[in-house]
Amino acid sequence: MMTDNNMTMLTDFYEFTMANGYFEKGMGNRRAYFDMFFRRVPDGGGYAVMAGVEQLVDYFKNLTFTPEDIAYLRGRNCFSEGFLDYLANFKFECDVWAVPEGTPIFPGEPVVTVAGPMIQAQFVETMILLTVNHQTLVATKANRITRAAKGRTVLEFGSRRAQGYAGAIYGARAAYIGGCNGTACVIADRDFRIPAGGTMAHSWVQMFDTEYEAFKSYAEIYPDNCVFLVDTYNVLKSGVPNAIRVANEVLAPRGIRPKGIRLDSGDIAYLSIKAREMLDAAGYPDMQIMASNSLDEYLVRDLLAQGARIDSFGIGERLITSKSEPVFGGVYKLVAVENDAGEIIPKIKVSENVEKITTPHFKKVYRFFDKLTGKALGDVLTLHDEVIHDEQPYTLFHPIHTWKKKIVTDYEVRPLQVQLFDKGACVYECPDIETIRNYCHDQIDTLWEQIRRFENPQTYYVDYSKKLWQVKNDLLEACNVD
Amino acid sequence: MMTDNNMTMLTDFYEFTMANGYFEKGMGNRRAYFDMFFRRVPDGGGYAVMAGVEQLVDYFKNLTFTPEDIAYLRGRNCFSEGFLDYLANFKFECDVWAVPEGTPIFPGEPVVTVAGPMIQAQFVETMILLTVNHQTLVATKANRITRAAKGRTVLEFGSRRAQGYAGAIYGARAAYIGGCNGTACVIADRDFRIPAGGTMAHSWVQMFDTEYEAFKSYAEIYPDNCVFLVDTYNVLKSGVPNAIRVANEVLAPRGIRPKGIRLDSGDIAYLSIKAREMLDAAGYPDMQIMASNSLDEYLVRDLLAQGARIDSFGIGERLITSKSEPVFGGVYKLVAVENDAGEIIPKIKVSENVEKITTPHFKKVYRFFDKLTGKALGDVLTLHDEVIHDEQPYTLFHPIHTWKKKIVTDYEVRPLQVQLFDKGACVYECPDIETIRNYCHDQIDTLWEQIRRFENPQTYYVDYSKKLWQVKNDLLEACNVD
Repeated sequence: MMTDNNMTMLTDFYEFTMANGYFEKGMGNRRAYFDMFFRRVPDGGGYAVMAGVEQLVDYFKNLTFTPEDIAYLRGRNCFSEGFLDYLANFKFECDVWAVPEGTPIFPGEPVVTVAGPMIQAQFVETMILLTVNHQTLVATKANRITRAAKGRTVLEFGSRRAQGYAGAIYGARAAYIGGCNGTACVIADRDFRIPAGGTMAHSWVQMFDTEYEAFKSYAEIYPDNCVFLVDTYNVLKSGVPNAIRVANEVLAPRGIRPKGIRLDSGDIAYLSIKAREMLDAAGYPDMQIMASNSLDEYLVRDLLAQGARIDSFGIGERLITSKSEPVFGGVYKLVAVENDAGEIIPKIKVSENVEKITTPHFKKVYRFFDKLTGKALGDVLTLHDEVIHDEQPYTLFHPIHTWKKKIVTDYEVRPLQVQLFDKGACVYECPDIETIRNYCHDQIDTLWEQIRRFENPQTYYVDYSKKLWQVKNDLLEACNVD
Repeated sequence: MMTDNNMTMLTDFYEFTMANGYFEKGMGNRRAYFDMFFRRVPDGGGYAVMAGVEQLVDYFKNLTFTPEDIAYLRGRNCFSEGFLDYLANFKFECDVWAVPEGTPIFPGEPVVTVAGPMIQAQFVETMILLTVNHQTLVATKANRITRAAKGRTVLEFGSRRAQGYAGAIYGARAAYIGGCNGTACVIADRDFRIPAGGTMAHSWVQMFDTEYEAFKSYAEIYPDNCVFLVDTYNVLKSGVPNAIRVANEVLAPRGIRPKGIRLDSGDIAYLSIKAREMLDAAGYPDMQIMASNSLDEYLVRDLLAQGARIDSFGIGERLITSKSEPVFGGVYKLVAVENDAGEIIPKIKVSENVEKITTPHFKKVYRFFDKLTGKALGDVLTLHDEVIHDEQPYTLFHPIHTWKKKIVTDYEVRPLQVQLFDKGACVYECPDIETIRNYCHDQIDTLWEQIRRFENPQTYYVDYSKKLWQVKNDLLEACNVD
């Protein structure tokens, strides 16, 4: 999909009308700065998990308009030949920075920053948002679900209910970054090395005259990978006894231990406890119990609280669509424009909704870590050329309630974004998926438990430097003239 | 995306383990029958709108395993060389039927039916569900929203919040089938001829020193397509007055009428009423007002009930993700298998949840229409070889409360499914998108108003023929042996 395809034309039509407009007005090459950021963590959580950067890099690398694209645009009868010629010879020239995949991110901070010719920096809006919004949504949900599972295996099972093909494939990728242990989606394994697995559907069991024959046939073919789906007829009266019988008759003589059973309907708490007793009594305490019936982080938590004996969760539609909150609301906003003298002029968008006011200027984001505990203390947005000397105490202050202050010492400070493109040239090598997933796990560990709470978490600090605060305040004062 | 790509490997891993299992057991060529159906209409609606058939046809046409796919599968060390050889020489041999796109569909009826070699009919499960679940979800939501808009223009604006690239592209397609008038998604126009449009973002307005200059520049370049985004600073104090001024100064001298304004924040009801007054007073009663701020069918209905003066709606995230209910829960179940004598043996899946019990056998679906009114009376599932003689009265009866009966006369009856593939050969020509969209509109018109109600609609009849009812009841009786 994405890696094979040129996604240049996956954009909103107004990106073209604006681009042609800037071109016609001679403004196309003026340097503009845009930030992608988000305003709220889905599901009321304390943080999101950045994902989608690798696909963003692919997108930028492949930005090019085919002759068919140009012909289509010409047929719309609203673009100048000069502009179409510019597109036909398009060369990406922007600088791009992004927060690496797997990093916990917070509302209000720039997770992607683009600087470059206005015509280009504007045009890439739709694909940046589409790519990062989607994968971040699923990675964040996966992280919630895997935390609820408290170390148990969590597998992504949602392809059939995903919102389209890319939803399934990149959703499986994002779910793995966020902490899942694998997927059922084969193409995600082939293309991204997300471990894919699976055994049988109810139809397998139905294809045979009896459940016993179905299990037996499966065990004969896959003795080392026996997870029997036990709820086609009756879990406790038929499914589990047949699984045990096949383990005894087919696997035991060959010295092979069965892997487990899967429950896909009914009361999972009750059935898993009863099934556990039966398996233990039959001499199979090592047979695992997998559950897979419309689960999410809330149900996983409740099942475990009720003593369910589940070793492994298969999570379908509620993960792949982030069903309880299926939209990650990242936005992409102009924050500065250079004037003819090459000065960066900060731009702000005001709004009656104060939370919709943007943070102006070309910025950097820094994360402060406590040197002693390694825990993240907060993030600070600064002007692009500010330097933080970590040998000196630093005063964090709330950007609205500015009297709320905290002086930090003995900290380490790291820039959060990395550069992906330098004047259109890729300068970033995407880490492999295992590295990203491990990095994610480690970075989530730097957050205090209060930030990681499912509901009503403590709000993580996303503060401004004094200089940035002053810039924003001055712009707001200047706007507020009736 | 889909049309360029082979999606064969977009499947659940268990489809491969089962396929290899059937192959190894010598069952691969036994003829099996599967139905896709769904159990519940999203958002509590009375019907869903079938979509995705064209992409299904593409999928079946392109079913083939590449040498890389075979190498990947071999590397998993669980499939036999015989099976891999079968895949390398795969030839699709199934019969496939589906309800045409744009048709209103109801819980419990087969919307896709596949008959063919067990190994193949099972394998295609994931892509059938993924394709039809996604597009039907969005087409159904679009139909709700366009009905709420009562004939006003509704445009799909959600690419940036879609769940992945295919979510954006095929979502735009499905939204158009369901009744939207167009999209912002350019690639959906290029590839599917869904009319795409758009004008400016807030960044356009911010790029200029003043809002007036921004509007003026736009009007100079696109005099015939002026929709001014008026909420960057202040809608009533700045945005609308500047739009009127530019209309007067730039467009009027050239004899061109401005198209309209767009509201993207604030209280849309209040602002649209006030803006309407200002535009009318300025001599522009024909300037349209477009609204585009996190809308869905409920907000559209409420805005119109409050007297909002909106001519056109731009609907983003709540349409493209069907946010209020982002999953269409179609399932794909085995309904029959042929025995060695070539007899069709019906199969049922029982469940403690009675609504999860499947309807067995190879079936046909018929829709009854009243000859006088043209309205749909109900659907009847029959055995595959039953014939309904529409010159004779027909007794509809409730499949559970069988005493609920209705004798219909003077009706016309039409089979609901069309055949897509005959022994693997495509025998269906997909209609063009305009034909599908018009057909959808006409078919929705055949539903009584009570079925179309947003909340608590009347339940449409989906009944069984006597023969089918008997088959199901006999199987249930046979299962219910302790």
